[in-house]
Formats: sequence, C-alpha cells, structure tokens
Amino acid sequence: MTQREYSFRGEISQEMKTVAENEGVKENEILNNIKEGTVVILKNKVHNIKPIGIGKNLSIKINANIGTSPYDFNLAKEIEKLKIAEKYGSDTVMDLSVGGDIDKTRKILIKEAKIPFGTVPIYQAFADILKAGKNIEDLKITDFLKVLQKHAEDGVDFVTIHAGLTRKALEASKKRKMPIVSRGGALLGEWMSKNNCENFLYEYYDDILDILKEYDIVISLGDGLRPGCIDDATDEAQLMELFVLGELTERAWDKGVQVMVEGPGHVPYNQIESNIILQKRICKGAPFYILGPLVTDIAAGYDHIAGAIGAALAARAGADFLCYLTPAEHLSLPSVEDVREGVIASKIVSHAIDLIRGNFKAIERNKKMSEARRNLDWDAMFKHVLDPEKAREYREKSKIGEHIECTMCGDFCSVKRKF
Amino acid sequence: MTQREYSFRGEISQEMKTVAENEGVKENEILNNIKEGTVVILKNKVHNIKPIGIGKNLSIKINANIGTSPYDFNLAKEIEKLKIAEKYGSDTVMDLSVGGDIDKTRKILIKEAKIPFGTVPIYQAFADILKAGKNIEDLKITDFLKVLQKHAEDGVDFVTIHAGLTRKALEASKKRKMPIVSRGGALLGEWMSKNNCENFLYEYYDDILDILKEYDIVISLGDGLRPGCIDDATDEAQLMELFVLGELTERAWDKGVQVMVEGPGHVPYNQIESNIILQKRICKGAPFYILGPLVTDIAAGYDHIAGAIGAALAARAGADFLCYLTPAEHLSLPSVEDVREGVIASKIVSHAIDLIRGNFKAIERNKKMSEARRNLDWDAMFKHVLDPEKAREYREKSKIGEHIECTMCGDFCSVKRKF
Repeated sequence: MTQREYSFRGEISQEMKTVAENEGVKENEILNNIKEGTVVILKNKVHNIKPIGIGKNLSIKINANIGTSPYDFNLAKEIEKLKIAEKYGSDTVMDLSVGGDIDKTRKILIKEAKIPFGTVPIYQAFADILKAGKNIEDLKITDFLKVLQKHAEDGVDFVTIHAGLTRKALEASKKRKMPIVSRGGALLGEWMSKNNCENFLYEYYDDILDILKEYDIVISLGDGLRPGCIDDATDEAQLMELFVLGELTERAWDKGVQVMVEGPGHVPYNQIESNIILQKRICKGAPFYILGPLVTDIAAGYDHIAGAIGAALAARAGADFLCYLTPAEHLSLPSVEDVREGVIASKIVSHAIDLIRGNFKAIERNKKMSEARRNLDWDAMFKHVLDPEKAREYREKSKIGEHIECTMCGDFCSVKRKF
Repeated sequence: MTQREYSFRGEISQEMKTVAENEGVKENEILNNIKEGTVVILKNKVHNIKPIGIGKNLSIKINANIGTSPYDFNLAKEIEKLKIAEKYGSDTVMDLSVGGDIDKTRKILIKEAKIPFGTVPIYQAFADILKAGKNIEDLKITDFLKVLQKHAEDGVDFVTIHAGLTRKALEASKKRKMPIVSRGGALLGEWMSKNNCENFLYEYYDDILDILKEYDIVISLGDGLRPGCIDDATDEAQLMELFVLGELTERAWDKGVQVMVEGPGHVPYNQIESNIILQKRICKGAPFYILGPLVTDIAAGYDHIAGAIGAALAARAGADFLCYLTPAEHLSLPSVEDVREGVIASKIVSHAIDLIRGNFKAIERNKKMSEARRNLDWDAMFKHVLDPEKAREYREKSKIGEHIECTMCGDFCSVKRKF
C-alpha cells in the first residue's frame, strides 16, 4: 500500500508516525493531509531510509542537486558532494547524472545516501539513446519505462516527470526570450518537434503512475517550461503547463500516487507570491517544490543569493520544498564547495521561514545562538551556527589571540559595555 | 544654501539637475521630494564629488562600510576595500574607523573615494577620549562637536548621529536578550549610565544641526537600539527610539538639514514590512537606510545572504538605501574579499527591486543578459553580469575547452536543443 492508500483507509502508517514525531505534529493531521494531498512522505518501499514529510504545517525542506555531466564525471567527487550536502543539513538529494556510467553512479550514491533520494529518469533515457548511437527522436516510451523501473528498484524516493509539457505549451514557449531552459523540457521539446507527436510522458502517464505506485515513489511534476529569464515569467507557456500539472496532480492522486509540483525559475520579485498562490490553487494544495525563484538574471556566480531572496518570499507564501542553487548555476557543474554554499543559502531561508511559522526546533536554536552571543561564548556560537567550520575559520584567520571580542569593534565591542 | 533651502525657494540646484538626469526623473519631482523630505542628495558643499540622490522614486542605493578597528588597522587594506566597493558598484562608502590614526585614515580615504562618503563621528570622539587616557564618561559635547567639525571640513557627505537613544529607551533595552548591539549606541549607553545624564547628542541636537547645515551634510539618524536578535525585534526599546527619531527628523527639516533614518537589525521575516511602514509613517517619509534586516541569528559566515533576504523585502516595502553586510559580520573585520561579496549581495537586492519598480537601466541590463544567454555568448554574459571576474573564473576553472556550453549539462544544454 502507498501512503495515500493508507490515508484512504484512515490507517496511520509507520512512516506517518515517524514524520509526526519528527515534526512535532499530530499523527492524525499527517494522515488527513496526505489524504487531501497537501503532505507527501518521501520513502520508496524498497529503500531503507528514514522517511521525511514535505508540505502543509511541516518544516520547510531543502534539496541539493548533485550528479555528473558529459564533460565532468567523477564519482568520488559526487560522493563528496552528497556527504557535504548531508553534513550541512540538506533534507534530500537529487542525482541529475548524465555523464559516465549513470547506473553505477546512481547505485553507489543511493547506497551512500542517508537521506531521501530523487532522480530525473528522462535524463538517463535520452543519454542512453545517444550512447547507443541513436538520436533524441528515437526514444520510445518503453525505453523510458525501463529506465524508470531501474530507478524504482534501486530505491529512488522521488522522480521528476515533465508530463505537463504539451505541444500547445511548446508552441507558446516559442514566443519567449528564452524558450526552454529546463534540461528535461528542452530534450522533450526536441523529441516532440522531430516526431511531430504529443509528449510521451503525457500520453503514457498512467503507465508511469503504475510503476510509481508499486514503490510508493512520489511524483514531482516537472516544470519543463519554467521561465529562464525575468521577462518570460508567468507567461502563457508557463501557465498552460501549470494547468496541465493541475490535471496530472488529480490523476496521480486518484491512482494512489503522492504528488509534488515543481515551480519556477526566473521570476521578478513582485510576481513570486502570485505564482505560489496560483500554483497551490491550480494544483489543489499539492506541496510546491521550487527552484529559486531567481529575482534577477545578472547574478551568475552568486545565484545562490538571488535564489535565496526569491525562495524566502515563496516559502512565506506557501512553497514547501526548496531546491538549492549554487554559485556555479549558469556557469558550470558545481564543485564540492559550491554545494556547501548552496545548501547553507537554502538553510538560511528554511530556518528564517520555520522561525516565523513557530517551528520549535528553529526557535530554540536561534535563542541559544543569541544567548551565546550575549555571553561572548564562541564555542557555543560555533555549536549553533549553520556552518561551524566557516565561522571558526573567520575567527582564526582574524588572529584575535586571547581577546574575547572580535576584530570588528575590538575593545569597542557593544556586548562588553556597561550601562 | 542647503538643498532643502533651495527647495523651499522652489529653486532647482545644480545637484538636483545632476540627480534628475542620472535617475531619469524630472527636476521638479526631485525638488518637490527634497522639500517634502522624501529625497536627500548626498554632497557636502566642500566635497568635490558627483552628488547622488536617495529616496522616493529613485533607484535603490547601497553602502559599503569600511574602516579600521583597534586590533586591525591597515590603511592600505582599507583603501583596497574602498576600491573594490567602488568597482563592484557600491553607491557610497562609510568609514567606521576606530583604530590607528583615525584622522589620517579618513582624510586619505575621502581623497581616494569617487563616491559619497559617510562617517559615524561619535566613534572617533570616544576613541580619542580613551587614547587620551580618560574614560568613556569623560567625553563632553564640545569634544564631540570638534570631531564633527573636522569631519565636516574634510568633506564628509553624511553622518550617523545616535540622537534618538534617550534614557527612557535605554531603560527599556535592559529587558532584552541583547540590550544594545550598536557600537555607537552601546558607548552612549555607558556614557549616559555612568554620568546619570540624558544623551548629549539629544540635548545638543541643535548645535549638531548647525554644523551639518553649514556643509549641507545629510544627517543619518542612527538606531542605537536596533534589535540584535530575532527575539528583540520591534520591541518597546526600538519603538521608543523610533518615535524620538520622528521628532528629530522634523527638527532637522525645520533647520534646513536633510535627513535619512536608520533601521534594524535582526528582524523576523514576517515583521519586516511592518517595520518599514511604521518607520515611514513615524518619520514622515524620510528615506530609510537599513542594515539587513537579518532574518535569522544563526547565519554567521553568511550574513550577507541572511541580510539580502531581509533587504529585498524591506526595499520592496519602501526602504531606500541598503547598508551591506559581509560574510564576516559577527565574526571579524571584513577582508577585501568580504567587501566584494557584501557589495554584490546588496547589488542583487537593489537590482531585483529596481527591476520591479520599472528602472530603465536595470531592465535594459537584464534584457541584454538574457539575449547573451540565448546566444550562448559568454563575452556578452561576462559584460552584463554583476561580477565578471567571478563568472569568468567559474568558466575557466571548469576546463570547458572549446565547447560552447558549460559543464553543467554539456551537450544536453537546453539552449542548444532544436524544437
């Protein structure tokens, strides 16, 4: 049985208990929210992992993307990225590999991972076709389903499926400055265009759901037409796809499959809240999984910051799950250090929003940090800060010696003044 | 005559013309807004500098704090910080020096600076007293006015004056987790407490205004009681000081002195907009100069990000001028590299908000970036991005060779797909 099927029966599963306990939320609330579709639990039936919940009244979760590319495939480095993402508190990880031995990479990463694991199976489906000397347009739905089945058997907990990108929306995307910037979306666009056919992920959606249901894999409905620049945000193409995602959300729910929906992209700061409200309305409250939104197009090298600015506003408006961006976005595959920076930027957002939603763990940690500051207790500060190593490094390289203050104000430290 | 005095007469000054032209705003609008107090122009009469405008309907401006501390005073390094702040687009710089030869540091920095220059004269006043072997409580208003006069003569364009920190508010601050975290505020608190006297900056406010008026220096009313942790935000102490700042705003306006008001601090994400609305209401629309707000207490090492998240929301709600935070905040005096990171984080915010307010320069730059991306034209991308050096570094270290895409997707690059 899937979590949704448990919820239809009114039966509290072991996974619901774990999530309820971890979040400090009542078990019945988790059950009801899974039933209404506003909460998902990530855990493939065959994956031995602590389940996590995402959605209504739960703490904000963050995801780190890792994985190889055709010009940069080094398994050891990807394992290191996984480890650093976990160390700094990423709740999940997604393997987006398209380079090297994709099966081997996934199997090893999933074995090493202590957190729920996601993939985008369409990447491997297209990569395999090209490796076999064929062309993009030669991919068949049967090839895709075989790849999906492998991912399912390996224990993947959630998968991105770009089934909402229909021909009509593809046509609309051609009016844009940046027609398609999603890797999966662009590959599918080429396939549809060359075959003069509807998106096979849309056409064979029920077959896809059958596999996902068997393993209780959460479907993450991909936004192949997420806007790739500020000027394209909230346009016809994006909204056409969103309406299809709303339809696909209900079809998955009806089959007993749990659903998340992915969202933009590059969005101007004054359109972010409307985007979240619209998505939640059209997709009937399904948890919203966002990338950014990036609030400017000119921040390459610092897109983790441009993304964090957008993510905070989105999370306050109701986004539930934040995909990190790293400083390498738009420039290269991220390094291990980029992964760390990306995770921390996302953690700042999730912590800031958890704080205002009354999350007891976030509030407690914040309080302890202030107490440590008031006492100029550096060891305690390093304990509660998001990145202890980085904070320590700053203090060490400032050569403060025996002084209890820092080099910012020295003896003029405000905390030392008596009044 | 000061800019305010020109505005009372309905006379458009050369400075107003320059600002109007630079911002693409009508000269009369600048004049009217200076008259109503919602715009200030930074330019000391004796300072040979291009004036900049801050406030209503103008682009968002950013400031970089530089300057020495008692344990870290290296003039060459501070000059380097000034240069890098200017290079990456800081609109102004403030010299917060309290270490080494403060007069010499300021004189050299102001000579090197091509952008408006601010100081916090109370720092030097207290530093001089301590250097003379006396105690905090020995400072006299005459000592302070002498320091202020020196800064004025050197061409300082704006000064922070913590005149709103009264004894009543000081008492209220004692209930806090972090009573006073502002350097100037804490020093004044100690002075008030030990002398059992009202804040001399409040008592002798008219004498201060007389000096500022002579040079048309903009007063930046300091928030000595800005909250130093999320739990202290928007409390009695902060609001008591804000009400006094409202009174002091009008007194300065009446004297013909231009006014900005400084704001918090650590503020939870759901209180930021209210803080801006309240400040604008109480201080009658005077331009608001913000530090952060920081949306969490646990981001040391990444406070430029926590600050950017708060600043974006604040700027959308009406904040006009953003003081950067660097990754070194709460840990040490910033390095040259920290200054660069802090400036870029603030530029991302100002650009994102300028975009949604229809600023033509911001929109144009953003458009050009998207065109460059669509064409995979890396040289054009590096031209329009906020930090060309960092973006180039990423591309170079990714060893992409002759490939036109990046190592993120390689041959799977969405921009290369045909549909």
